[in-house]
Amino acid sequence: MTVYNAPVEDMKFVLNDVLQISKYSNLPGFSDASEDVVEAILEEGAKLASNVLHPLNQSGDKEGCTRHEDGSVTTPKGFKEAYNMFSEGGWQGLSFDPEYGGQGLPYILSVAINEMISSSNMAFGMYPGLAMGAALAIHAHGSDEQKQKYLPKMVSGEWGGTMNLTEPHCGTDLGLLRTKAVPQDDGSYKITGTKIFISAGEHDLTDNIIHLVLARIEGGPEGVKGISLFVVPKFHVNEDGSLGARNGVACGSIEEKMGIHGNSTCVMNYDDAVGYLIGEEHKGLRAMFTMMNEARLGVGLQGFAISEVAYQNGAAYANDRLQGRSLTGVAAPDKPADPIIVHPDVRRMLMDQRAFNEGGRAWMYWTALHADLHHKSEDEATRQKADDYMGLMTPILKAYLTEKGYAHATNAQQVLGGHGYIQEWGMEQFVRDARITMIYEGANGIQALDLVGRKLMKDGGRAWQAFFAEVDEFVADNEGNSDLKPYTDGLVAAKKDVEEATQWMAANAMQNFNNAGAGSMDYLHMFALLCLAHGWAQLAKAALDRKATGDGNSFYENKLITGKYFLERILPDTKSHLAKLKTGAESMMALPAEAF
Amino acid sequence: MTVYNAPVEDMKFVLNDVLQISKYSNLPGFSDASEDVVEAILEEGAKLASNVLHPLNQSGDKEGCTRHEDGSVTTPKGFKEAYNMFSEGGWQGLSFDPEYGGQGLPYILSVAINEMISSSNMAFGMYPGLAMGAALAIHAHGSDEQKQKYLPKMVSGEWGGTMNLTEPHCGTDLGLLRTKAVPQDDGSYKITGTKIFISAGEHDLTDNIIHLVLARIEGGPEGVKGISLFVVPKFHVNEDGSLGARNGVACGSIEEKMGIHGNSTCVMNYDDAVGYLIGEEHKGLRAMFTMMNEARLGVGLQGFAISEVAYQNGAAYANDRLQGRSLTGVAAPDKPADPIIVHPDVRRMLMDQRAFNEGGRAWMYWTALHADLHHKSEDEATRQKADDYMGLMTPILKAYLTEKGYAHATNAQQVLGGHGYIQEWGMEQFVRDARITMIYEGANGIQALDLVGRKLMKDGGRAWQAFFAEVDEFVADNEGNSDLKPYTDGLVAAKKDVEEATQWMAANAMQNFNNAGAGSMDYLHMFALLCLAHGWAQLAKAALDRKATGDGNSFYENKLITGKYFLERILPDTKSHLAKLKTGAESMMALPAEAF
Repeated sequence: MTVYNAPVEDMKFVLNDVLQISKYSNLPGFSDASEDVVEAILEEGAKLASNVLHPLNQSGDKEGCTRHEDGSVTTPKGFKEAYNMFSEGGWQGLSFDPEYGGQGLPYILSVAINEMISSSNMAFGMYPGLAMGAALAIHAHGSDEQKQKYLPKMVSGEWGGTMNLTEPHCGTDLGLLRTKAVPQDDGSYKITGTKIFISAGEHDLTDNIIHLVLARIEGGPEGVKGISLFVVPKFHVNEDGSLGARNGVACGSIEEKMGIHGNSTCVMNYDDAVGYLIGEEHKGLRAMFTMMNEARLGVGLQGFAISEVAYQNGAAYANDRLQGRSLTGVAAPDKPADPIIVHPDVRRMLMDQRAFNEGGRAWMYWTALHADLHHKSEDEATRQKADDYMGLMTPILKAYLTEKGYAHATNAQQVLGGHGYIQEWGMEQFVRDARITMIYEGANGIQALDLVGRKLMKDGGRAWQAFFAEVDEFVADNEGNSDLKPYTDGLVAAKKDVEEATQWMAANAMQNFNNAGAGSMDYLHMFALLCLAHGWAQLAKAALDRKATGDGNSFYENKLITGKYFLERILPDTKSHLAKLKTGAESMMALPAEAF
Repeated sequence: MTVYNAPVEDMKFVLNDVLQISKYSNLPGFSDASEDVVEAILEEGAKLASNVLHPLNQSGDKEGCTRHEDGSVTTPKGFKEAYNMFSEGGWQGLSFDPEYGGQGLPYILSVAINEMISSSNMAFGMYPGLAMGAALAIHAHGSDEQKQKYLPKMVSGEWGGTMNLTEPHCGTDLGLLRTKAVPQDDGSYKITGTKIFISAGEHDLTDNIIHLVLARIEGGPEGVKGISLFVVPKFHVNEDGSLGARNGVACGSIEEKMGIHGNSTCVMNYDDAVGYLIGEEHKGLRAMFTMMNEARLGVGLQGFAISEVAYQNGAAYANDRLQGRSLTGVAAPDKPADPIIVHPDVRRMLMDQRAFNEGGRAWMYWTALHADLHHKSEDEATRQKADDYMGLMTPILKAYLTEKGYAHATNAQQVLGGHGYIQEWGMEQFVRDARITMIYEGANGIQALDLVGRKLMKDGGRAWQAFFAEVDEFVADNEGNSDLKPYTDGLVAAKKDVEEATQWMAANAMQNFNNAGAGSMDYLHMFALLCLAHGWAQLAKAALDRKATGDGNSFYENKLITGKYFLERILPDTKSHLAKLKTGAESMMALPAEAF
């Protein structure tokens, strides 16, 4: 009953006008991504999302996944056919290394396609999403032999992939993990242990599943320093690439969850499963973080992707549902009541979502462009700066876009009133699906801690200093632009608040680390608002440029209005975050634990 | 797997120390409510909630209600036995008029018991809750004959009750309703139409169900001015009180919802059902509002009641789950990791919930006390002021406590990380159940509109002026109390912001009504924060008084810490709400409807 139309025009505007990706044609892959090619790819992706994936979203939620007695798992009706279309369309390898069968197009294009997939059917999207994460980790840390063995089939979509970190007694704190790896004479390891919450852990979409598993080599150091990463294929892979016998890994059960029912979240039992070390002994965490960082950006993307599809359905209902009359006079005299979009508080909810979705997209794609720069630029300074940005932005994007994505899915549901609470209308599924994004790949509190405890002061604060300088430069470059002034003023004001917060942190965190922890989430939100203000200033500039060249399309005027709404109605939150942050840890930590 | 322990100590503190209900022993019913009696009732209610109702909460959610082919509905296993215990315990009539079998105790006591019921099993609580709302409407607007006929069995719990407003094409805008009532020669009416979203519309808990139904008498005026209220019993009631034939009303289907699965939300078909007018012709809306206002307070109560039970389970997990080490040094050296309650961001979530729950309780009970004063005081000025307060506070309580209750249920779920997303842990149910409270009995946007469009300027603003004067008086009375100063300072600052917002509204709403609508939700939130600051100032004063008398119980110290947390970490939001409100309607309303 829900609909999804990929916002291709918005995507093109961000890629072509705001980020001007044609400027990067010196980077590998970018020269193939002309405006025409980008448009064609986005249009094809939009069709897949709207016509194939989205129609399976509600039915997939309702049916869920089924585990059979032999441990096999069936995905919801239609998922396999849809997956085949996805694979055969070459979508999995869109931006992957051509050496392993990928098309080598810019990563930023994959991000746009992933937005469509997550909006249209998040549970479905997790199957190829996890596989791609695993493929990237193998690509970054595997041996040549491992890459040749696994990547071509993973990139083609013939094989799936997973990441196995969490155990019943440890999620965040991986130092506690118990899964053990016993070295064998042939260089392989026997892996034994139980992993939980394994997304796409077992399913019927692919011929094989390549599990990446964190385990502790027998006799290795305790804590996180003794963790290694292993590749454990569901079916052994023969020398000629054909599939051999089943490995000692099986799905013990699937979780009954709040949402993403279309994805199989498995308890995975490893029982003397044969695994092969990826990268160095005891350095597994570093390798896993390659995958994790990729996954965290993907989760942030899910956050605003769900908000986008929820918004679309909320907006359609608001234009359709007749109830009450406009406060300023009858708007639809030919109807028994006005469409509820005339009511300011309905507008407020929709504009909140819209300002978030469009600003979030600009910010996310800007970050994705830096992933391309980091991996592909020939200039070391550019690579380093891009890497700095990725490190800094990853926790902020993940936590902010998911927390607000969930809030905005809830807002979109609210627009439907009572119908929003009824399953068949589909809005409550968006809320249930969005909810996991705040939790998995590192709960949002962990992201905030990563930001203030690690990313902020890394390399003496080089990352945020570079970002602040870029903001200053943008403001200076546009000083005479009076039309842009509200947006640059907002940007300057937000930056000032973040600077004050940063100084407060620097002055107070060392005497009591809890001051940093206590302010971490407020700080993350302030920083996110600054990034959105940066995104909106860029969107506004591009829209003004288009208007200046005589393009009278209302699209650009609407961008400017939505940006103004962001400045007026969302950005002021930096002030209250700052006020809260500066109160420190005292009242937060004062109660004894047993009082809770 | 979840637990619930009624916060009896907190409730007693609010009733006895903060509100000092013993001061009202001149009011009917209050003289029976000595501290001992109150404590005994709360303890008994706590047992019912923890031992009988809460164990059915998760199973009721999982099983849901079943509609059979004949239209009958079975509630989840155990609900009927629990309901019998509830009725036989006399809980339904706790504060009802003794003339109809009630115990006539203060309404405020019912509110405390209702909090326990909503915390322990919200879906269950809606059956007696809706029945009580219907009973109160009959009590207020029915004829003596109707009262004698229906109330004793409704008050004993033998019969249920419902309210039937919504139709497929109209929820908020009741002027559109189509259900028709055709007058019969015997003074009765034949009612025909379809009502949707009828909570507890059909079930197996009671021998009869007394439906209150809004319908339009044939030939009556259009719009809301032609709506009348009817009582439509499921089974006809004979002169001797025995049950007669089945009336022409039946459950057509039950809705599949996001949550509150234990409650049957029905489509009710009225087909020449015999109904009896309640109150005057065409004045049905007024009568229904009696029920609705009662229901709105009850829904606000559900909001923080769910937050309370979610908090309890989140806090227990935080003390139990070992993960990571404290930022300020190892807290539990004998364990492989520290309990996660050592982490500031976990504390932040729990303290946010706690400050909301405890402040919300003080505010809600304070409001409930005014319901008692409104109904029972012999002093007209007191009654009027209490009525003013009820009118003013109802939309604020409903919207704020439900929006934040949902947010805090989400926060409590977040504390559990991945386990929070798994059904068996029970946290996600709290979120799904809490979600409806923002929607039903008037979506929160309608509450905000009710506040700024109706309640604020009613009688020249008498209600808020009285409240502001009471705040000023409290501050003046405690001027020399330096320990209380942070709390009164917070109160003064919040009041100043609300005053500024009120002035802005007065100056800008008349030239453009959309300015009022655009700021309505921010205004509601600011006002709610002021009310919470008022509640916290009263809590702090009572705690300080206890400490001054040498009571060294940490309970009082913990209240002061939590109050300080509220001042530092929650109250600053008034500032950003004010900034947003003052930007007016322009950017919110500027986009053409078709741009959405």
